[in-house]
Amino acid sequence: MADYRTSALKSPIDVAEYLFLRLREIGVDSIHGVPGDYNLIALDYVSKVGMKWVGNVNELNAGYAADGYARVKGISAIVTTFGVGELSAINAIAGAYSEHVPVVHIVGTPSTASQKNGMLLHHTLGNGNFNVFADMSQNISCVVEKLNDPTTVASQIDHALQQCWIQSRPVYLSLPTDVVQKKIEGERLKTPIDLHLPENDPDREAYVVDVVLKYLTAAKNPVILVDACAIRHRVLDEVHDLIEKTNLPVFVTPMGKGAVNEEHSNYGGVYAGEGSQPDVKKRVEASDLILTIGAIKSDFNTAGFSYKTSQLNTIDFHSTKIAVKYSEYPGVHMRGVLRQVINKIDLSKLSAVAGPTVVNEVNDNDDGTPTITQAWFWPRVGQFLKENDIVITETGTSNFGIWETKFPKNVTALSQVLWGSIGYSVGATQGAALATRDAGTHRRTILFVGDGSFQLTAQEVSTIIRLGLKVTIFVVCNDGFTIERFIHGVDADYNDIAAWHFKDIVKVFGAKDGSYKTFQVKTKDEVNKLFADKTFNAAEVLQFVELYIPRDDAPRALKLTAEASAANNAKQ
Amino acid sequence: MADYRTSALKSPIDVAEYLFLRLREIGVDSIHGVPGDYNLIALDYVSKVGMKWVGNVNELNAGYAADGYARVKGISAIVTTFGVGELSAINAIAGAYSEHVPVVHIVGTPSTASQKNGMLLHHTLGNGNFNVFADMSQNISCVVEKLNDPTTVASQIDHALQQCWIQSRPVYLSLPTDVVQKKIEGERLKTPIDLHLPENDPDREAYVVDVVLKYLTAAKNPVILVDACAIRHRVLDEVHDLIEKTNLPVFVTPMGKGAVNEEHSNYGGVYAGEGSQPDVKKRVEASDLILTIGAIKSDFNTAGFSYKTSQLNTIDFHSTKIAVKYSEYPGVHMRGVLRQVINKIDLSKLSAVAGPTVVNEVNDNDDGTPTITQAWFWPRVGQFLKENDIVITETGTSNFGIWETKFPKNVTALSQVLWGSIGYSVGATQGAALATRDAGTHRRTILFVGDGSFQLTAQEVSTIIRLGLKVTIFVVCNDGFTIERFIHGVDADYNDIAAWHFKDIVKVFGAKDGSYKTFQVKTKDEVNKLFADKTFNAAEVLQFVELYIPRDDAPRALKLTAEASAANNAKQ
Repeated sequence: MADYRTSALKSPIDVAEYLFLRLREIGVDSIHGVPGDYNLIALDYVSKVGMKWVGNVNELNAGYAADGYARVKGISAIVTTFGVGELSAINAIAGAYSEHVPVVHIVGTPSTASQKNGMLLHHTLGNGNFNVFADMSQNISCVVEKLNDPTTVASQIDHALQQCWIQSRPVYLSLPTDVVQKKIEGERLKTPIDLHLPENDPDREAYVVDVVLKYLTAAKNPVILVDACAIRHRVLDEVHDLIEKTNLPVFVTPMGKGAVNEEHSNYGGVYAGEGSQPDVKKRVEASDLILTIGAIKSDFNTAGFSYKTSQLNTIDFHSTKIAVKYSEYPGVHMRGVLRQVINKIDLSKLSAVAGPTVVNEVNDNDDGTPTITQAWFWPRVGQFLKENDIVITETGTSNFGIWETKFPKNVTALSQVLWGSIGYSVGATQGAALATRDAGTHRRTILFVGDGSFQLTAQEVSTIIRLGLKVTIFVVCNDGFTIERFIHGVDADYNDIAAWHFKDIVKVFGAKDGSYKTFQVKTKDEVNKLFADKTFNAAEVLQFVELYIPRDDAPRALKLTAEASAANNAKQ
Repeated sequence: MADYRTSALKSPIDVAEYLFLRLREIGVDSIHGVPGDYNLIALDYVSKVGMKWVGNVNELNAGYAADGYARVKGISAIVTTFGVGELSAINAIAGAYSEHVPVVHIVGTPSTASQKNGMLLHHTLGNGNFNVFADMSQNISCVVEKLNDPTTVASQIDHALQQCWIQSRPVYLSLPTDVVQKKIEGERLKTPIDLHLPENDPDREAYVVDVVLKYLTAAKNPVILVDACAIRHRVLDEVHDLIEKTNLPVFVTPMGKGAVNEEHSNYGGVYAGEGSQPDVKKRVEASDLILTIGAIKSDFNTAGFSYKTSQLNTIDFHSTKIAVKYSEYPGVHMRGVLRQVINKIDLSKLSAVAGPTVVNEVNDNDDGTPTITQAWFWPRVGQFLKENDIVITETGTSNFGIWETKFPKNVTALSQVLWGSIGYSVGATQGAALATRDAGTHRRTILFVGDGSFQLTAQEVSTIIRLGLKVTIFVVCNDGFTIERFIHGVDADYNDIAAWHFKDIVKVFGAKDGSYKTFQVKTKDEVNKLFADKTFNAAEVLQFVELYIPRDDAPRALKLTAEASAANNAKQ
């Protein structure tokens, strides 16, 4: 027990109250999670500080939802209970780590006394080891703090939340039952947590900027390629200004979808090697200098490592370093460098050659049959989407199909191209929809998820209903795991799934008549009618659409990527 | 790449075929899991060797199902994919570790070449570290083997499966995509894996047996108390023979439910300290020698550490040691010791004083109202159950209520009293029902699960339907997390859940008309009618019962334990 006298505190405040007030301060208005007996007392403070408790159906879904919330609102928090709860969420937290999403994971643990005495408590391995689960989280968290000692709790919390934001990755906080109500100094709350990115060392930054400018002005046909970390490490303003200033053509990777205004005249399309449209591939690969911003050159983000670009023609801007060709400049954040490049570029020396233009190619992809095909559907979605929509796509056909969708302005796209945990999107949709409501922006939130993936986390629709979130859900009904069929086992029974009555799930999960609408669309005409419907477009209730696409149909890019994946799996 | 020439093999066999044949040899007929691109080729071998692929709806459910299967059939296996899949299952595997259940966890991983090259693949953290997830499994597996090298794969597999069985705990095997089809020596399969428990050192064992016999014959009113590890470490034959030979009264702990024949005249009831029936408590606590067999004295197994027994009056039989009062004898397995005690006991010196008798106290617990109460319901269940039933109870009111249910002969009881992960029981029910079908025993499989817990893993009912398993499911509809209400927050919104139409879920998940029946029971009369119904008793289709019990009603033992839990959480 620390020697800590409440009487010495100017504004005593309970630990849990401090924690939730800090979370609210940095933009978390709702707390995701599942109650469990080691976190119940802490949960009392959620409503006490004016936050909302989500109460997800299970912890994995809660983790996915927290990830979705953070991607829309900037940061999020999830509360689980020791052992059983935190481990159920760990896949979602690992996903947030992999994909650079700032999620605060708070785990209610047995009391410090119980831990010290190695008590044989429920939710333990029965071996008196209370560190096992926190240790598991070490490699998927940028900070792990055990809030055991009231004298250090406040600084531990402040440090963790700061790093969560700045590194844009999960942090793990364990909160023992007996510490929840300990008094700490509330005066600290008068000073907000400093979320500013530390400035780059000026000399180092200036040096890198000079190198970048040298190559940029020497290039004949440079292009900009925007990827996931440009979104996650918050340099979209810089990206936008860079495009406006330089007039260079800009492309996005699959994970970079939504990063730039796709209605902008400089927008050239999605670049993913062989998975790109031919004119995009040609333009990017012919470029003598590619400025990649926040790149994650993973297999699914590059259509199976099919980039035909050279590092000799590349400058990579990252949150931890800049790489100019093969020269690396560690410890420099891209934000400052990009800003200086924008400020200092001599436009008279810059050669800005226009790129291809992008449209939603609906007619070219119409095979003349009534059948809804992947090739036809995704450009058609681009015509349905509106400014400010939030679009969530699941790993599988949707994640690849969306490459062919040209977005309106300010569309935010959520997907897990790197981590690729199926089922993610249903939870993420709940989180995203709540985030826009909490932010007061009320953007349409639209999910595209395959039938196989939907089944993993289906019950999160129940949370969507309970919270009254007016999302639109498209379940792509194509009889199982199509992405896997294209990798291996096209007719294997392990790629089959149970035949659910998908749309009836909404009523079973408690939606009241009038608070939802369900649809079945099986032809292009039915899609067209639905997309033309004013009420459907208004999305003022929960809308659930069964969308039928043939089992063996897949987006072009998926087929390519799956082929590459199968080859890589077999490689000796 | 190992120098390994197929031409030198007498009976070349593919690694995956070897693995599955070994699993079949030790009693696994069906493989649980979810397909993922790093395990697809391995899954081809499941049907090839004549096993069945379950194809669960998600990995956590698959893990729970594998746990349930192992508890009924002896051992089980689950296949997941790297990162996303294995982490989704990790809570279930940790539960199996905590509760001593032998589950073989096989993880399909990227190829050895991809790992060596640190490729930026999907399902990774993006940092080239391919060991993170296997490392996480170290503390929840008794053996971790990476099957990377064909020259050692066979012995690694044999060792892991042997230890899984003998230690009765999970093992973790990672299987890279490129190793699946490597050829290894099939001749090994002619020698079955040795699953025999190693014999105790004879001198050491004889020494311990003498000590035990000395105290046992000196005792005035000894009793036997049977706990979880007697089941898990397979000494039920010894327990049975000990009872028959000595005629001592026998009690079980909550985790020991089902270990002994509760119709036996020596059966005295459930002992769990303050949670026991008064005559049970009196008899056990007055005993001057308690032989505890396979004890796990955890909080929920002892009604909050409320044993009023002394270690000075206790002999503990474990799988790794014997403890006589405060003397410990490590490295001695209880099986050999118990057998010798049975063989050598001089009955003329033994004082066997009868214990209390147990009946299902239905009338005494009838409050005269139509309302179904927890106190009335659980003894009533005891009258409904039949010989050989498998009964699964979920953490919450069911796990505590079942203490008041006297079982017929040969009932197997599944629950997670130590690990206590809510949602476990729905998956476990699938596994248990499949296990009895695979074993050709066709036992009735009956689940009792609270509405809150059911929601976490509800979709596993879909697998039950797809496999045509004829289970009977009781969902206790009492508006949320009752066990948590009794610990903290009786009216807190975080203990509320969404109002589902539970029984309608069966049809939504694809059950065909005629293949299932649903019921709603809200009064004692309706329960009585249902339990009297011949068709319902025959359980020839999937039966789904909504059972309404008031929100604030809980079994006596739960109230006590929750109170103790709350006090312990608050303790400084």
